[in-house]
Parts: sequence; C-alpha cells; structure tokens
Amino acid sequence: MNYKLVFRLLGRLLLTEAALMLPSLGVSLIYGQGDTLAFLCAIAITAVVGALLSFLLKPEREDLTARDGMAVAGLSWVILSFFGALPFVLSGAIPHMVDAYFEAVSGFTTTGSTILTEIEHLPKGVLFWRSFTHWIGGMGVLVFTLAVLPRLSGRTSHLARAESPGPTFSKLLPKMSDTAKMLYMLYFALTAIEAVCLLLAGMNLYDALIHALSTAGTGGFSNYNASVGAFHSPLIEWIIGIFMMLFGINFAIYFHMLRREKEPILQNEELWTYLAIVAGATLLITLNILPRYDGFFEALRNAFFQVTSIVSTTGFGSADFNVWPLFSKTLLLLLLCLGACAGSTAGGFKLSRVLLLGKSAYRDLEHTIQPRKVAVVRLEGKAVQESTLAQVGVYLSLWVVLAVLGTLLLSLGQTDFVTAFTAVLTTLSNVGPGLNGVGPTENFAFFSPAAKLLLSFMMLAGRLEIYPILLLFAPHVWRKN
Amino acid sequence: MNYKLVFRLLGRLLLTEAALMLPSLGVSLIYGQGDTLAFLCAIAITAVVGALLSFLLKPEREDLTARDGMAVAGLSWVILSFFGALPFVLSGAIPHMVDAYFEAVSGFTTTGSTILTEIEHLPKGVLFWRSFTHWIGGMGVLVFTLAVLPRLSGRTSHLARAESPGPTFSKLLPKMSDTAKMLYMLYFALTAIEAVCLLLAGMNLYDALIHALSTAGTGGFSNYNASVGAFHSPLIEWIIGIFMMLFGINFAIYFHMLRREKEPILQNEELWTYLAIVAGATLLITLNILPRYDGFFEALRNAFFQVTSIVSTTGFGSADFNVWPLFSKTLLLLLLCLGACAGSTAGGFKLSRVLLLGKSAYRDLEHTIQPRKVAVVRLEGKAVQESTLAQVGVYLSLWVVLAVLGTLLLSLGQTDFVTAFTAVLTTLSNVGPGLNGVGPTENFAFFSPAAKLLLSFMMLAGRLEIYPILLLFAPHVWRKN
Repeated sequence: MNYKLVFRLLGRLLLTEAALMLPSLGVSLIYGQGDTLAFLCAIAITAVVGALLSFLLKPEREDLTARDGMAVAGLSWVILSFFGALPFVLSGAIPHMVDAYFEAVSGFTTTGSTILTEIEHLPKGVLFWRSFTHWIGGMGVLVFTLAVLPRLSGRTSHLARAESPGPTFSKLLPKMSDTAKMLYMLYFALTAIEAVCLLLAGMNLYDALIHALSTAGTGGFSNYNASVGAFHSPLIEWIIGIFMMLFGINFAIYFHMLRREKEPILQNEELWTYLAIVAGATLLITLNILPRYDGFFEALRNAFFQVTSIVSTTGFGSADFNVWPLFSKTLLLLLLCLGACAGSTAGGFKLSRVLLLGKSAYRDLEHTIQPRKVAVVRLEGKAVQESTLAQVGVYLSLWVVLAVLGTLLLSLGQTDFVTAFTAVLTTLSNVGPGLNGVGPTENFAFFSPAAKLLLSFMMLAGRLEIYPILLLFAPHVWRKN
Repeated sequence: MNYKLVFRLLGRLLLTEAALMLPSLGVSLIYGQGDTLAFLCAIAITAVVGALLSFLLKPEREDLTARDGMAVAGLSWVILSFFGALPFVLSGAIPHMVDAYFEAVSGFTTTGSTILTEIEHLPKGVLFWRSFTHWIGGMGVLVFTLAVLPRLSGRTSHLARAESPGPTFSKLLPKMSDTAKMLYMLYFALTAIEAVCLLLAGMNLYDALIHALSTAGTGGFSNYNASVGAFHSPLIEWIIGIFMMLFGINFAIYFHMLRREKEPILQNEELWTYLAIVAGATLLITLNILPRYDGFFEALRNAFFQVTSIVSTTGFGSADFNVWPLFSKTLLLLLLCLGACAGSTAGGFKLSRVLLLGKSAYRDLEHTIQPRKVAVVRLEGKAVQESTLAQVGVYLSLWVVLAVLGTLLLSLGQTDFVTAFTAVLTTLSNVGPGLNGVGPTENFAFFSPAAKLLLSFMMLAGRLEIYPILLLFAPHVWRKN
C-alpha cells in the first residue's frame, strides 16, 4: 500500500466530512437544543485530523493502484463512520461509542437500523445529521470527493468502481468528474422535489427535509418512533412510497430521460424487471393482507409502501408487517435480499446480478440438452463477458457465506433464529428492519456490543459490495509497495 | 425426445424395481403381518407395466442423446417413486396416495422425512421396503440398472452423470459397467459390515438390517418413533454415527484404499475438508450443549451423532436438537445445506462445490488487488476448467432460487417461518428433519397435500441435483426428434 497517498486521500475525505457537518451545525443553531457545542467539537476534530493527514503527507508517487483504490474505499467508510459518530457521542444523544458507531454506520451505509429507543426526545441537529448521513452515503462519499476535487489523483475510476453498486460500471459522460457532478445534480434535484411534495402534503419543513434526505439515500431513519406511520396521512405514505421506488432506479435512466433518449430506457431490462417486481409483489401482498384492512385501497397502500420500502432497501415503516401473514413476510424477506437496481442508492444483491444469474442458468440448462449450441448471455442488448458472469457467481457465494457466518456468530447470543437471520440479512442488504426481534416496531438496542460491531461489519460489507471490506483483512493489501 | 427409447428404458427400470421388491415380500412372508398380498400386487403391477414398456416398444434408433438422458433420469425417479408407493397404499399402511408418494420419494431420494405418526404399528415387510428404498436410492437406480444390464444402450455415461452427485464425474475403471459393479460391491460390503456391528452391539437382525440399509443410503428412516434414540444404547449411537460419517465419503476413496493407493487419498481435499468439518462442528456443538448433559462424553456423543447425521444428510435422531441452543441449531442448519462429499450417497450442496466456490472467490479477491496476475483454480492438484467453475456458480443460484421459492410457496399455508424454511432446506438437501414444526421429534403429516407434493419436488430436485427435474418442465425436452 502506498501509505502516504492512501492516508492523504483519507484526510481529504475527512475535510469533506467536516464540511458536510456544517448544515447540521446550522440546524442545531436554529433550534438551540444544546447540541451546537457537540457539532463545533466534532467539526473541529474531524477537520484537524483531516488537515493534518492531507497537508503533512507528501506521497512520492501519485498513481493509485487497484490495491490502493480498494484500501481507500474500505478504509474511508470505516473512518468516516467513526468521525460521523462524534456528534452522537459528544452531544450525549448516544453516550456509548459502539452504539454511536453502529448508528453512524447504519446512516452512511443507508441501512437505517437504529439502536435508539426514544428518538423524539433527541436534539433536532443530531437527528438532522442522522438523516443527512443517509443522503451522503447514498450516492457515495468518494464520488462526492471526486466531484469536488477533480484533479486529486490520476486513476480515480478505481475508486468510483469500488464504491458504486452493481456488477458493471458505466461512465455516462467521457470525464469521470463530469459523470459524478451530473449524478449529484440529479440526486439533489430529486431530493428537493420530494421535500416540496412532502411540504405540500402538510409536513413541516424540518420533517419534510429529514424524510426527503432519508428517502433519497434509501436509508430509512425517521425522527419519529413510529416512522412514517406517525403522520397518519395516506397522502404522505403514497408520496414517500413513490419516491422510495424512484430512488431504487438506476440514475442513468433519469439522465437519459432528461436527454429525451428513449432507446436506452426501453432496453433497460433491469428497470422493467424492477417495476414488474414492485407491481407483482404489491398485488400479491395486497391480496394476502386484504382481510386485515378496511377495503382494497387501504391494503394496497400498505402493501405498496412496504414493498417499495423493502425493495428499495429504505426501511421506512407505515405498518407492523411483522404481524402480517407468513407469505407476505417471506416475500418481503426475498425482496429485502434482492434489492433494487444497480446505479441507484439502493443496497441488496441488485437486480442486474439476478438477471445475469438467471440468464446464465437458462443458458446452462439449454446447454445440458443441446450440448453443441453456443450461446452468449446478453443484458441490455450487449453481450456479457464470461468473466463478469463468473464474478457474479462468486459474488453470490460471498454474499451467502457472509449471511450464513453472520447468522451463526449472531446466534451465539440469541435464542430466536428469525431474529438473528433477518438481522443479518437486513444489515447486509442495507434495509433496516427485519422480522421478530428486529421487526419494524423493534430496534437493535438489545444486541451486545460485539453483535453491534458484527452487524456494523455486515452493513459496511453490504454497502461496498463486500470486496473492499473483505480485502482490509488481506495482509497483501497492507504490504508496503 | 426419442419416446420409444426413453419409455423402453423406463420399462426396464420398472422390471428392476419389481425385482427389488422381492426381499420385502420375503420379509412380509416371514412375519406374516398381512402385507404379503400388497407386495404381490405391487410386484405384479410394476412388473406388468415394466414388461409392456420394455418388450412392446421397438425404438428405431438406439443412441441416447444428452436430452434423452436427462429425461430418463428425471422421469425414472418420478415413476419409480410412484410404483414404489404401491406397497404403502395397497397394504393400507399409508392409505392416501399423496402421503404414500411423499414417503416413497423421501425413501428413494434418501431424505428420510416421514408423514408417519405411528411407525411401530406398521407391518414389518412395509417398514423393510421403506428402508430398502433408501438403500436403492442411495447409489442410484440407473447406475444399478447399468450394472445389471450393461449393453442396454450405446451412450450410457449421460445417465450415470445425471444421477451421480457432485460437480464432476469420474470413471474409476475404463468401463462404465465395471465402475458401477465395483461401486455396488463396496456399497454392499459396507452395509453388511454395519449390520454385523449393530448385531454385535445387541440389535436384533431385523432392526440391524433396517438401520444398516437406512444408514448406507444416508436416508434416515427408522422403524421406531424415537429413531436411534429408541435403543438407549451409547454403543449403537457411536456405531451408527461412525457409519453415517463413512457413507458421506466419496466411494472412490474406499476403492483406492482397497488398492492401497495412498496418493489419491492424501490429495483428496474434499475428504480432509469433510473430516475437518465433522471434527470442528462436533467440538463446537459439544462445548455449546455441555451444560445440558452429564459430562463431556455424553455431550460429545450426542454432538457427534447429530453432526454426522446432518452432514451426511442421513437424518437419524438420537436427541431433540430442536431444544439445543440457537448456535448449535444454526450450525446444524449450515451443515444440512452443505452436505458431504460428491460421489457418496449423501445429498446437499456437496463439499467439492463449496471448495470450488471458495477457491474462485479467493482468486477473484486476489485478482481485484493484483489485476495482472493470472491464476488457475486447482482441485485435487488438477486445474479446473473455467466452465466448471461457472456451472458451480449457476448451480448455487438455482439452489438458492429453489430454496427461496419453495419457502415462499410453503409459507402460504404456514404461520412459522422457521418451519417452512427448514422444511424446504431439509428436503432439498435430502436430510430429513428440520427445526420447529419439522424438528427431529416431529413429522411432515400436518402439511397439506399440495405442500407434500411441493416438498416431494424439492426432494427429487435435491437428489438429482436440480437439472434433470427442472428440464422435465422444458417443452424442448418433450419435442419429438
């Protein structure tokens, strides 16, 4: 590892993070609930450490190898969450560091699992920061850093690739930094539109911002214990439901829409699969829960909200789906693992990977009965390389191994299999709630500190799609070059 | 499909099955518990249908295509189970056809899940047939047919490949039929040795035969409600535990042992992984359940028995592991999915596949940080083809899809996730018991007929490693050629 270069990059990232804490400082000043000093200290500490790393380290070589790129991606999220936890600890909102770290990781990875049992008593600045971490984490901090500091280093596509979700990575514009800027503008615009819609639906400005930020990052932190259910407003549930669905779509689609390019949208198999899954799952769950609600439309609204909340890996709650029939719960659990589209802010396994695996499986079955037929797997009209297909298979294995080992380790301190299993799945998929003990009306406070660290690891592995986090454990990555 | 050839082969298979019912007829004659007529009728029906198909159909072409081979493999197990259910129905032991079919599928696929609630009252001939189906299914009926009727058809390796478990298929002797005969002799000898050991340990001849047959096929049907626990004999538990472990080992190992070839045994990574897993899991579970038992050795015996029972996918019970701590249950659930060695009578995913996925994942992680390094995955010292690696990834996806969709469908009639989930896993892995409602002291009687057919499908898919059963749903397979 090129230590000086890597740590200088991490320093720049901390400077960015300190700057990103400023809006929350502003909110704390407006409401004056005693959290201003915490933000000042947190900003100061983060900025000083960041400045020391960025300006004192002078790397001999400026080129970022693939290995260093992976190390930066992995380390930056670990460190970002550590400094991001400072406002929670310093304000006293979350006194224990492990709890605060869990909450910060859950924020940045856009998971939305919380260890807080009483959210509504906390200072408004702290709650704003909590939702703002979702917004930062959704699009990726490294991408943001690239957009802000374009000439940071030579080969930066390693970084964007390591942080961007999905099996393949495509530049929409010739220059990396232009792509990043454009994506952030779209992200900002969509967030703003949602906030305005929520305002018009009757939310106050603060609540509207909190929920728009948490939706945009597909995170799921709310400033109410009852989550979105606290508003008792069908209109708000529909708005958030629709925006959760929208933030699960590949942002490239919006880019093409702005440019009025029809072909790439119509050809995007992942998009149409996603919309079909949302529609199909909503219908099935509506029919399954119908007897529990007053009429079709109330059941439909609840089903749509939960389906979009889970499939987009947001995790907002409007109803306690833990008491729904088992079929609905199992279907939600399946959607939770699938996730939404690559290139969105959503977590999970990603539908494009599911499509690739499905197509390879179909080809393999075909090959078994027609051994002489040579077939190429195509996605979005383009031939997919065999090595990409093999990597998707490997990714599935790693995902399964993490889920299984995570459940096994977590089961050491638990008595309920469903709690342990769904806690691991929901953190690995960056969703938020699970079933039983970690159901939508429950929280993660009861886990031991070791279990919280394990689940933090799952969240980071899920958000960075496993490789950068796993490679932090490879001695080779840490060897000096 | 070459209909005439395929159905003639199925006819021969039914003739073989009728012959294989003769020992059970003999048992029913000895004990005279009213099941003799049922066996006579079942044998007559099976033999007549078999004879009609084999002697009336005259195929124009004798060569078996890959497609026909798959169709024969899939259909033969479906049909074999149907005729194998006749003794259950005709004797009145299991009056309903769906229940009897479930029990026969569970027998032939060596699963050992039962719908019987009162086993001990049934006629001894019927119970002998029930365990004998395990023994037949363990090594494979097609392989047996090949051994008995060597010159049946030109290209028969398709058939053996479709029926033999594991990612690769190797002929130990130059001629297919010689390999099959040698494997059956080993199988017979090991079963006989176990029966003798059980006799010496105090079992009567009938019980010894039943348990030896069920162990050899890694099935798990016992003639006692309390399974092996009914004997209250630590010695018997140790003997069966050790033999369960032995039947989970690739039979090629025994072949090499007989020939005193050390090299292929030492090089067999799957074998050593298997033994390490058995030892490691036994130790972990012993420590986890220690407080519940009188001393280390009692805990060790129970842990060893359950570990070998689950990892070899046998499913015999000596203790109710459903009441063990969650860690032990989760670990057993993991072993249940893994299964044992390819080329044994065990089910599950197979350790050689796990090894291949693990090695590809390692290579992929290595490639991420050292993109210029070209590495080949090796197993047992030999380079593995990239296409084999891709197929293992596809196999994992199909396995996960079946497990997920199975759980989803089963959840329609259930209220407990763990029951539905582990019922699907245990049938897909051909183990037998699961957790909660399908735990070791429970049975599968309470499922609806639709659920029983779904689980029968899972058992067949698991035993034939998915492809032959899935391809029965492909219209292309049924097209005339």
